[in-house]
Amino acid sequence: MKNKIKYGMIGGGPGAFIGEVHRKAAALDGHLELVAGAFSSSPEMTQKMGEELGLESNRLYDSFEEMAKAEAALPKEQRIDVVTVVTPNHLHFPVCKVFIEQGINVVCDKPMTNTVEEAEELCRLVEKHDIIFALTHNYTGYPMVKEARHLVKSGKLGSLRKIVVEYPQGWLSEPVEEQGNKQAKWRTDPQKAGVSAALADIGTHAENLVEYITGLKIEKLYADTTSFVEGRALEDDANLLVHYEGGVKGILYASQISVGEENPLKIRIYGTEASLEWKQESPNFLSLKYPDRPEEIYKRGNPYLSDAANFGTRVPPGHPEGFIEAFANIYKNVALTIKARKEGNEPGVLAADFPSVLDGLAGVKFIHKAVESGKENRWIDMG
Amino acid sequence: MKNKIKYGMIGGGPGAFIGEVHRKAAALDGHLELVAGAFSSSPEMTQKMGEELGLESNRLYDSFEEMAKAEAALPKEQRIDVVTVVTPNHLHFPVCKVFIEQGINVVCDKPMTNTVEEAEELCRLVEKHDIIFALTHNYTGYPMVKEARHLVKSGKLGSLRKIVVEYPQGWLSEPVEEQGNKQAKWRTDPQKAGVSAALADIGTHAENLVEYITGLKIEKLYADTTSFVEGRALEDDANLLVHYEGGVKGILYASQISVGEENPLKIRIYGTEASLEWKQESPNFLSLKYPDRPEEIYKRGNPYLSDAANFGTRVPPGHPEGFIEAFANIYKNVALTIKARKEGNEPGVLAADFPSVLDGLAGVKFIHKAVESGKENRWIDMG
Amino acid sequence: MKNKIKYGMIGGGPGAFIGEVHRKAAALDGHLELVAGAFSSSPEMTQKMGEELGLESNRLYDSFEEMAKAEAALPKEQRIDVVTVVTPNHLHFPVCKVFIEQGINVVCDKPMTNTVEEAEELCRLVEKHDIIFALTHNYTGYPMVKEARHLVKSGKLGSLRKIVVEYPQGWLSEPVEEQGNKQAKWRTDPQKAGVSAALADIGTHAENLVEYITGLKIEKLYADTTSFVEGRALEDDANLLVHYEGGVKGILYASQISVGEENPLKIRIYGTEASLEWKQESPNFLSLKYPDRPEEIYKRGNPYLSDAANFGTRVPPGHPEGFIEAFANIYKNVALTIKARKEGNEPGVLAADFPSVLDGLAGVKFIHKAVESGKENRWIDMG
Amino acid sequence: MKNKIKYGMIGGGPGAFIGEVHRKAAALDGHLELVAGAFSSSPEMTQKMGEELGLESNRLYDSFEEMAKAEAALPKEQRIDVVTVVTPNHLHFPVCKVFIEQGINVVCDKPMTNTVEEAEELCRLVEKHDIIFALTHNYTGYPMVKEARHLVKSGKLGSLRKIVVEYPQGWLSEPVEEQGNKQAKWRTDPQKAGVSAALADIGTHAENLVEYITGLKIEKLYADTTSFVEGRALEDDANLLVHYEGGVKGILYASQISVGEENPLKIRIYGTEASLEWKQESPNFLSLKYPDRPEEIYKRGNPYLSDAANFGTRVPPGHPEGFIEAFANIYKNVALTIKARKEGNEPGVLAADFPSVLDGLAGVKFIHKAVESGKENRWIDMG
Repeated sequence: MKNKIKYGMIGGGPGAFIGEVHRKAAALDGHLELVAGAFSSSPEMTQKMGEELGLESNRLYDSFEEMAKAEAALPKEQRIDVVTVVTPNHLHFPVCKVFIEQGINVVCDKPMTNTVEEAEELCRLVEKHDIIFALTHNYTGYPMVKEARHLVKSGKLGSLRKIVVEYPQGWLSEPVEEQGNKQAKWRTDPQKAGVSAALADIGTHAENLVEYITGLKIEKLYADTTSFVEGRALEDDANLLVHYEGGVKGILYASQISVGEENPLKIRIYGTEASLEWKQESPNFLSLKYPDRPEEIYKRGNPYLSDAANFGTRVPPGHPEGFIEAFANIYKNVALTIKARKEGNEPGVLAADFPSVLDGLAGVKFIHKAVESGKENRWIDMG
Repeated sequence: MKNKIKYGMIGGGPGAFIGEVHRKAAALDGHLELVAGAFSSSPEMTQKMGEELGLESNRLYDSFEEMAKAEAALPKEQRIDVVTVVTPNHLHFPVCKVFIEQGINVVCDKPMTNTVEEAEELCRLVEKHDIIFALTHNYTGYPMVKEARHLVKSGKLGSLRKIVVEYPQGWLSEPVEEQGNKQAKWRTDPQKAGVSAALADIGTHAENLVEYITGLKIEKLYADTTSFVEGRALEDDANLLVHYEGGVKGILYASQISVGEENPLKIRIYGTEASLEWKQESPNFLSLKYPDRPEEIYKRGNPYLSDAANFGTRVPPGHPEGFIEAFANIYKNVALTIKARKEGNEPGVLAADFPSVLDGLAGVKFIHKAVESGKENRWIDMG
Repeated sequence: MKNKIKYGMIGGGPGAFIGEVHRKAAALDGHLELVAGAFSSSPEMTQKMGEELGLESNRLYDSFEEMAKAEAALPKEQRIDVVTVVTPNHLHFPVCKVFIEQGINVVCDKPMTNTVEEAEELCRLVEKHDIIFALTHNYTGYPMVKEARHLVKSGKLGSLRKIVVEYPQGWLSEPVEEQGNKQAKWRTDPQKAGVSAALADIGTHAENLVEYITGLKIEKLYADTTSFVEGRALEDDANLLVHYEGGVKGILYASQISVGEENPLKIRIYGTEASLEWKQESPNFLSLKYPDRPEEIYKRGNPYLSDAANFGTRVPPGHPEGFIEAFANIYKNVALTIKARKEGNEPGVLAADFPSVLDGLAGVKFIHKAVESGKENRWIDMG
Repeated sequence: MKNKIKYGMIGGGPGAFIGEVHRKAAALDGHLELVAGAFSSSPEMTQKMGEELGLESNRLYDSFEEMAKAEAALPKEQRIDVVTVVTPNHLHFPVCKVFIEQGINVVCDKPMTNTVEEAEELCRLVEKHDIIFALTHNYTGYPMVKEARHLVKSGKLGSLRKIVVEYPQGWLSEPVEEQGNKQAKWRTDPQKAGVSAALADIGTHAENLVEYITGLKIEKLYADTTSFVEGRALEDDANLLVHYEGGVKGILYASQISVGEENPLKIRIYGTEASLEWKQESPNFLSLKYPDRPEEIYKRGNPYLSDAANFGTRVPPGHPEGFIEAFANIYKNVALTIKARKEGNEPGVLAADFPSVLDGLAGVKFIHKAVESGKENRWIDMG
């Protein structure tokens, strides 16, 4: 594509699953082009990755600091429009900071930072430097999640009463961090993952999903957290009672020791008039239940869906879209927003629909408050 | 059938849903025969019901007290072997008491009583009078629930870690108790239902299901209870964190304002080796998930299942059995146990498999502790 | 029940699955009472079965001929109102004949007879003796099948175009008839089963289901029949192209070598406006699909369903009903119809809803035409 | 990527759904780069599309003939490695021919050609010019379809007996070709679509799926074809009886008037030892059923799957992959095969796994034989 948005990547070296997903998601619609990277703390690895990806060698950098400076110094039409941050959690903050300070837009993996202070600092920096910042809470990219949000907003469910959101996984049910699993290693290491494992990795997706669909903020929460696997420093299971604004009650849980579960993130929202249910493992469907008529199954790609849902869809009904397509919806919208800004336009409400630095702050707060509640055995206000 | 077990019924008058279910469940296998009743506090209603059911008029009684006395005075071969108690909750205790004291066996609806003291008193009376007492926690009658129990016992899941059990319903999401719904009326009336609505009606089924399958007792619980419908005195929604023996953690919830939900009671149990899932709305299947091989769907009626599951099955695989069949498994086992005792035999382990007065006590305690926790906002030990 | 309908049974001796199902189905609602039987060609077996069932010994007969005569000779208030015929296929005709000639109502298993001539003869006899005759095409007893029929009749689907009905089973995928499986033995034996195995046993259920729901008669059919298991004389697999009245096209197949399948009888009906789908293995649901709006899941027991569906339901939504309940709906309706006639009334349209001798004739014709088509490799008109 | 495979596109102008899908599929993994095109018979439309896609204007051509010549004349390192043909059916042949004759590799949509003669000619040309030719039978790109093939090959199902494959859609249930639907217009126009609508569009996918998974060729078939919508020249519904090699029997049907259906392509394969089932609308799962043990659900992305399945997977288990990813597997394998050839290597068995010109010929023959059978009402040998 002419006028492709140019992006660089920090992290995502050889073998890193999530970097690969970001690259595919960015490539899918042809809006973005990868042109620079510091894929690893090892310059050799960065070279290797860059070659594999066909990047120019002068756009491969030994460190993210070097890259930020060098890219910012390039002529505007050459330099990256946006950087993607896919490092382990503890590096999100310094990497984002340095690029934001150079005025470069950012796409960052969640959780945004390891501390609330860092998250607040990023909020300030984003505002100060007026850059575009997106957080890859990718589940909100699914068209039927967007439809769910539309239905809630439109009043289809009536007043909300109860929300049950769950994210059980099984991949940490054994001490795989001691058996060579690299991702498990850093995700269970407080030095890299921060104060939390399960809550930071997947609990925050659940929390964000609720807020995205309902717009409701958590008022207070009570967390029952456990490290089931012996010797693990961080929680691998967390069960939460949640009170949202407006008297809405909920359950939220995240678990990585739920053996046999893959990624069945699921949300059920109950209102006075109707309820809805969505499951990540069959993401093209959305169930609506009523007190007095048959359950309805909304299906992706149909004309009866909202613009919000259909803006994020690529193939006709009955041809499944999946995880990468949802992920790509964040990249597509970021690209459209950057393009609009470059052309001096507003991006439009559909393109502007991606998780922001404020969602990132909410997520980091959620993680910290939940961990605190789990340690102190009491309700914690979100403040 | 010759030598049918004769039973009487207290409650279950015209229009009472649950009485009708009990009669069908008792009739299904031909082991029992209804011969007496005090179906209503109104003698006219009892007469009407008795006629409709074809009972002899001298076996229709104006009150349960009269019936207990009169039946006990009949010659052994004529009098009822067992009485079924299907009144609103507050009458369970006095009715059970009077029949037990006459040495008559009892089948009683849950929750067993409205107070813990009454429940304890029934335990003492059952022991003292050495009668057979069954509580209709009917969901434990499903063959695949029995299979689940067998699998847990046999170690298939390894050591248990986490249990998620949920029972959402939607039928009380409006104030139907003020709109002529009789069952809603008494179930939300503290005078009749006791201290609880949702927990007593369905939460206790969830609690019993866990204990039946896993054998685990609750050590302590934390309940977040709400009355969503204005003016309702008792809770219509309850979300619980639960700690079981042996470090097992769990979530249990019961809701009657989850609009659009019918009866999707569901349990998921996670061990170190495997997990299982069972849903009441498709009760003929049981899912087993593993860390390293395909999910398995166990199906009712197959030779590869345990004796416990197959003892409670009537038709071949692929021909669904439902709610009444599960209910009938309690009646069948009670009948076989009574027959065995009449013949001086032990009933055998398969026939002896029905919920007991001790399950009833556990349930009543659970309800009270959960309500207490909900009111006091703290963890409560089950004591 | 006072005024219970008294019935006798031919066949259904010890170990016979289907006799047991009939007895449970008849018992469920309390309308019928088993009082007589010739359960086996062996008088000893009949004695044994009768004792087990608690029947009076003078109502146990050495042969069906003896029973027909003796029962007919009893005073009206003592003798059976109806006889249930659950023998292997080849005995259906002689047994039905002798009871009809005595003016006794009949419930008969399908297929009704082994030849078309016999089926026609039964039609004549039923008319001549003016008795009530029901065939146990039990799948039409499911409430959601009745709803499907209601929806088609009411025009919800528009004009019908296409019907796909399938009934795959796997239980005959090995030569189990040579390995001691009694039911397999007679079902694959032309002397007892007639000209067909799979078509007679289950294909005819599929055919009847279509006609029950749509009212459409087959105009012509083309069958591709196979005996996959070596040495088996009758077909164990049949794939049919079907042309119905009014230009409706269809596929119908029955298979007993579809290994791993239990009883997933399924029907899909496509009209100009909407389509529906129902599966026997999850019988409490009915799916409606539209060109321009979400799929709807109709669920048993809800007020939004037709009277036809709700007349055949016993427990609230979300509490599954199964195979025995569907079966029991035939017995219930037969009992209500007999009662009405005894009282000189019409039974009412809901009670009159059970498969008739004409359905039996249609089924036998279907089997024979399909077998003929399979042998001659050509379209056969139903005539 | 450096060394990206360069491709051009014929067809796929503004608003063409399938061209867009091809571009996304080609982009996903970063192996290919679109550099040239003749997107429309209208040069203006080609310009517009080319600009939108950011192509160099000297690589936008007024006709496919011009493009073939011009590209072939470019230096090797500049010219396209492969051309993608996404025109209506009738142009597949002339377009493919001209590019093959220039020695340019081809990816072509199905059905390959409108006549058997053309298909045979393409086979000859591909061989003569020794080019790489891929047909986008995209459903064979799904990892779980590859797993199905692996399981059949490995003998897991025993000897095959029966295959049921179905592809119902509803989008042509109204005469939308007269209501402005462009795709419907050419697909129902014999001048463009050839002798068939439903069979050519989707029936051939079903046929290819069977052959891909089982390796079985059709020996003969019997088709019952219908044009339900008045005035439609080509069939919109086709029900087939199929005999495969080795005595395997089957049903195959394709329908575009099955109202409410989206794309539930489904295949069930029954062997002597086990059976399998796969549905396109939930493509990440594969069901295996056995005579004597629980059903198994194989899930995409797991280590227990075959190399063939895992080579075609991008994200971890539980994160759905969909239609575009399956489509992309064809492009990925074509790209790897072209790369290998350019480097003088063999592509390896996993990369070589994409539908070939021979699959294209089989498909065209299938369509013609089925149409012929439908017209002549007789079995047709595949010859």
